[in-house]
Amino acid sequence: MDSKWYLGTGAQSDVVISTRIRFARNIKEFAFPAKLSVPERIRVNNILEKAILSCKEFDFRFIEMKTMSQLQAVSLAERHLVSPEFASSCDGRALIITEDESVSIMLCEEDHIRLQVMKAGLSLDEAFKVADGIDDAIGAKLNYAFDDRIGFLTQYPTNLGTGMRASVMLHLPALTAMGQIQRLISTVSKLGLSIGGSYGEFTHAKGDLYQLSNRITLGISEKVAIENLKSIALQIAAQERAAREELSKSKETEDKIHRAYGILKHARLLGIDEFMKCISLIRLGAVQNILKADDALISKLMVDMQPATISISVERPLDDKARDELRAQLVRESLS
Amino acid sequence: MDSKWYLGTGAQSDVVISTRIRFARNIKEFAFPAKLSVPERIRVNNILEKAILSCKEFDFRFIEMKTMSQLQAVSLAERHLVSPEFASSCDGRALIITEDESVSIMLCEEDHIRLQVMKAGLSLDEAFKVADGIDDAIGAKLNYAFDDRIGFLTQYPTNLGTGMRASVMLHLPALTAMGQIQRLISTVSKLGLSIGGSYGEFTHAKGDLYQLSNRITLGISEKVAIENLKSIALQIAAQERAAREELSKSKETEDKIHRAYGILKHARLLGIDEFMKCISLIRLGAVQNILKADDALISKLMVDMQPATISISVERPLDDKARDELRAQLVRESLS
Repeated sequence: MDSKWYLGTGAQSDVVISTRIRFARNIKEFAFPAKLSVPERIRVNNILEKAILSCKEFDFRFIEMKTMSQLQAVSLAERHLVSPEFASSCDGRALIITEDESVSIMLCEEDHIRLQVMKAGLSLDEAFKVADGIDDAIGAKLNYAFDDRIGFLTQYPTNLGTGMRASVMLHLPALTAMGQIQRLISTVSKLGLSIGGSYGEFTHAKGDLYQLSNRITLGISEKVAIENLKSIALQIAAQERAAREELSKSKETEDKIHRAYGILKHARLLGIDEFMKCISLIRLGAVQNILKADDALISKLMVDMQPATISISVERPLDDKARDELRAQLVRESLS
Repeated sequence: MDSKWYLGTGAQSDVVISTRIRFARNIKEFAFPAKLSVPERIRVNNILEKAILSCKEFDFRFIEMKTMSQLQAVSLAERHLVSPEFASSCDGRALIITEDESVSIMLCEEDHIRLQVMKAGLSLDEAFKVADGIDDAIGAKLNYAFDDRIGFLTQYPTNLGTGMRASVMLHLPALTAMGQIQRLISTVSKLGLSIGGSYGEFTHAKGDLYQLSNRITLGISEKVAIENLKSIALQIAAQERAAREELSKSKETEDKIHRAYGILKHARLLGIDEFMKCISLIRLGAVQNILKADDALISKLMVDMQPATISISVERPLDDKARDELRAQLVRESLS
């Protein structure tokens, strides 16, 4: 567990939690996964497995999704290793991941290959470099579906071209508290980017976490898309910092942050929404020197306390109340 | 401070916080206070002071209310040493109290003399004995307004006869949480008693504290009134205990109690209503062995954290926010 990528730290990490680069790729010889039967997808996955696992510079592990329990699959989605849709239906799907979970490759999601690389903090160039290296290695072994005029071919036109989605996870408690998110969404949208909750564009932002990503993949180079995203992420981070300074002047903020700590330290029942709200305040408090808290512990709890992930830690399904009770207990113990 | 009566403990103190016996008395030679001018009331007070302070077995101290600041007067009411009405207008009024605050005598409130004795826990007989002794001593020096057929004469007919109001302060968090207070009020009322918030019949019950007192003073002996009150207090205490047992079975109750502790231990702004709510839960938790808490500390905080009392502790008026901040700080310090 201690070697997981999200326990590390990176640039701008007071606001930018993590960076993700995702490539969508397909191979020429097969139709898109949606057009394939389950046995055909399994055949594709086996071909992809062989090609990808032969890239010896990575400690890749291959997992057939149908060998996983529903809880394990959902836990993967909670850790952003697979998309929620991928976790919801496992037939003919497979996953390749590294031990530290920084690289994950969904096989037969929307496209044959969905390669993603994650890094802590704002780390777009580094993440791109890693993803690009893996992509080249795989591309050397397989025939990617590629059109000289358009670029990479993908099932949905929104990914045509680079097939790249670059995104950063932003922690925006102050802009949220000041009611500036709607304005931000509309500004960002005019700049060709999209912003949404931590599980995608249309999800609710829990824990004041927002995913900012590029929308344009056609007629733009990866480099330009990344530069564009980086520049806007830095601007938002600057706005968030200014808002935090403003917010931190008030006793009410200090009170809210310490109360959040009190809840995590003393509650006996703790739902995921309240947990995320409190941990967000504690992260803010730590950055603003209002209280002391261990960065890596916060990052670890934000992952480990998710509903399915917490359930698989005790290797049995839990009802809502038992899960809230276990979450309260684990959080209490980890803070003492 | 450590010698104050409310820091002690008494019978049934898991439910019965305190006992109070109050006698209303008037002297023959003067009209009721409402009919007297301020100079006349001052004259009455001086006569009463001389008579009462000559009872050497008590360490009585005489205070003219007009020598007090508004905050000091309100603090006396918060400590139940005077009525809120008495604190609100100080002209021609005076107070005699003992060092431990267990005996207080309001001069020229509704009646010339309002003698009250307070004890921790359920202690009606003992409190009555003390009050009766003081009453006899004063009665030997002054001519009480007394009618052979009616008994003691008082300004309001509701006090005619014994002039006695006996009351107990009950802590009823479980009956409150279970929504049984309305039913209790109606039952108690049919039995000739009244129940209300801690500052009197029509006040809101803060901290789940309720004052139960006898209503009938005419045609009933003090002994019978006290026995009646005691018996009903014991029945309510039994109901409260049963309700606590029921409530304590649930994880939700445990959660609420620990969260209350978390708030008191971590908040940076703490209003009086929230403080009373939390301290009530902590008192319940301590009695039910859900958490550990010091009885005397709880009793002390319940008095010291009242708005005016907290303000005079720093010898300056505080605005609401500064007071909530100071309360949070003092509570935090006292719990650590």
